[in-house]
Amino acid sequence: MSEQLTSLRINRDRFRSNFKALALIGAAPEGGVHRPALSEAHLKARRLFLELAEKVGLDTKVDGAGNHSAFLASNVSDAPILLMGSHLDSVPHGGRFDGSLGVLAALEVLQVIKENEIDLNVHLEAIDFTDEEGRFVSLMGSRALIGELERNDLLNICESRELFQQALTRAQIDESSVLSAGRDPSNLAGYLELHIEQGTRLLDQGKDIGIVTTIVGIRSWRLRFLGRADHAGTTPMAKRLDAAQGAAAFTLAAREMVMKEFPDGVVNVGLMEFSPGAFNVVPETVNVSLQFRADQQEKMDRMEAALLLQAAQDADRFSLRLETEKLEKVAPVEMNPQVQNAIAQACQDVNLSHTMLPSGAGHDAQTLAPVCPTGMIFVPSVDGFSHSPQEFTEWDDCYNGVNTLLHSALILAQQKINQ
Amino acid sequence: MSEQLTSLRINRDRFRSNFKALALIGAAPEGGVHRPALSEAHLKARRLFLELAEKVGLDTKVDGAGNHSAFLASNVSDAPILLMGSHLDSVPHGGRFDGSLGVLAALEVLQVIKENEIDLNVHLEAIDFTDEEGRFVSLMGSRALIGELERNDLLNICESRELFQQALTRAQIDESSVLSAGRDPSNLAGYLELHIEQGTRLLDQGKDIGIVTTIVGIRSWRLRFLGRADHAGTTPMAKRLDAAQGAAAFTLAAREMVMKEFPDGVVNVGLMEFSPGAFNVVPETVNVSLQFRADQQEKMDRMEAALLLQAAQDADRFSLRLETEKLEKVAPVEMNPQVQNAIAQACQDVNLSHTMLPSGAGHDAQTLAPVCPTGMIFVPSVDGFSHSPQEFTEWDDCYNGVNTLLHSALILAQQKINQ
Repeated sequence: MSEQLTSLRINRDRFRSNFKALALIGAAPEGGVHRPALSEAHLKARRLFLELAEKVGLDTKVDGAGNHSAFLASNVSDAPILLMGSHLDSVPHGGRFDGSLGVLAALEVLQVIKENEIDLNVHLEAIDFTDEEGRFVSLMGSRALIGELERNDLLNICESRELFQQALTRAQIDESSVLSAGRDPSNLAGYLELHIEQGTRLLDQGKDIGIVTTIVGIRSWRLRFLGRADHAGTTPMAKRLDAAQGAAAFTLAAREMVMKEFPDGVVNVGLMEFSPGAFNVVPETVNVSLQFRADQQEKMDRMEAALLLQAAQDADRFSLRLETEKLEKVAPVEMNPQVQNAIAQACQDVNLSHTMLPSGAGHDAQTLAPVCPTGMIFVPSVDGFSHSPQEFTEWDDCYNGVNTLLHSALILAQQKINQ
Repeated sequence: MSEQLTSLRINRDRFRSNFKALALIGAAPEGGVHRPALSEAHLKARRLFLELAEKVGLDTKVDGAGNHSAFLASNVSDAPILLMGSHLDSVPHGGRFDGSLGVLAALEVLQVIKENEIDLNVHLEAIDFTDEEGRFVSLMGSRALIGELERNDLLNICESRELFQQALTRAQIDESSVLSAGRDPSNLAGYLELHIEQGTRLLDQGKDIGIVTTIVGIRSWRLRFLGRADHAGTTPMAKRLDAAQGAAAFTLAAREMVMKEFPDGVVNVGLMEFSPGAFNVVPETVNVSLQFRADQQEKMDRMEAALLLQAAQDADRFSLRLETEKLEKVAPVEMNPQVQNAIAQACQDVNLSHTMLPSGAGHDAQTLAPVCPTGMIFVPSVDGFSHSPQEFTEWDDCYNGVNTLLHSALILAQQKINQ
């Protein structure tokens, strides 16, 4: 790479200004943002992304899955596309950095390359994927883009089918358009995603940049404990079929079991839904939202079996019935070694320290990894806060990440990696 | 009492027809009724009650607390009022008998006495009390009627204040009218309430009628376990402040503790509300709806202290904070001995067996008991189901209950008990 290219840097002020403008959309009183996928706030954030791109003369596009893109074309018309991005949706009452950083970083990279009139052998596309966080279908946008989403995936919805239909309508898309948003992966030169670490390893080790080696797998289940609705005053304690007892016992046992038997894995009961749900009625059903993660397929299989057995035992213990529903299954995936090397080279070019680490969180990169050379860049998270309003990354670390993304893209474009 | 009066019986067909018509309002697909206080279905049920009364020439009235009444005046114009009734609201997805039986029974008693042109020394009033089940404020209507409700009681609402305001508006009442609905208790000759037992003691003992001796006290608290919202993939298990763990531990421990240390008492966690409530976020707060009951004040004090201590220990165990909010406090109350005797005499007049028993459920009768001679009549519940669509009482048992109510009223009227 020429010395001139190596010294190329992003426009910090522009990036910060864009970031601040975006963080106002869906801003929550307690800090952070509340932008559930396809909510009004989320759609507004996506419009801002396209407006920012159009303002500087980039082409834009929205596909059938609602993915929003900005383009910078190569002079080589049949060149493959180097994709960069992340997502603008948030978990409920989430942070300002998760996803947003990667989308605005990709946009900034396109702008820097455009304004410096650098001609690459790849088209560049900055993309904002739909519903990464899985309000309805985890990683829906990226999965639709690689054409792996099937009708069945749209039936097991994390929130209700009704809310999903309303949300699609709000975004002016529908199930058919989602299912037909697949692209030919052979046109993809690769995929790069900049993201906050959401943990404390980089800060603990004093490193500027994390280069992701693998992304953990995620499985989600809905466990329904079924008992009997009874009067909470007249029904003797011993005669109750109290769904809350089974759900509570499982919640405690799942944590203890995973900590003891799967020390690398994690498990979460993020929500319980009670029915009928009154002070004076014994709970008839409790729906438990269960999610667990591990870095190896074999480990995930063992965790799943152990957790489902635990739930069955806890239901038995309180004479409850148990219904289980598999909602989501994302396999652990490895990042492309050549892309990892390119990111390491970029760190050197920008003069930043780096370390290699697995990602405990799921990302759109895991969807792209099986179909094109894929890599992820992490920047430090203060105190590791994430999926929370306290999520925070220093400006300098953000700039470092965007510069690393820029140079990773330049290196990969030179390598014409997919050709 | 004259032999003619002793042989007086209710009109079974008319009562059954009224009961069936009422059960259609708010009827749920799974059986039973869904008539939360001041919902559209509840207001429709109340209108039917007044229409049935007006159709047979009874006077009707709605007071500032939304209590609906039908009247049959005595020839003695300054006579006191013998009140009879119950409530037409239901718990969410509750049964057809709880409350409804007592209101329609009171109406039937007025009709029988009116059509037989029996002149009593008391006015008769059949009343449907507002929000017995405590969707907003437990026993709101009866507490308003005796003038004990204060502005403070309307601030600690079981559901949200906003829903409460909307519900009041729907019912064309407001907080001021609720607080000024108090009557002079010296005008009340007494209060009688027919209700299903909601337990299996009558069927277990083969008795037709239960005469209530005491009504248990009820206390409700909202316990809020506060942790930290974190990413459920990247945050190590040991570093989480998971509010679900505290709530789950408390739910299990509360049941075990009450069963062991308070074998006569009961405890219920009827609802947990998770925030933010997503698969992939560690729960930051869980609100636990706690209710417990016992038949003695001293026992309730000890239960309360033990449960709050348990909650504090469970919060500590998982490094959570705990906030507690007292919502409801209803003292255990004894029924009037003279009224109990009158009901026993009525059972003899109607040729029914009876037994004396405490009520494990709260009822409007407990509000009236401190201000006027009050009694309750129980009829058998099949399998003890209540607060559930499976709630069921045989027609013959219903008729027995209404006949017992009729004759209890006739006896009390003759005794001019409050004069």
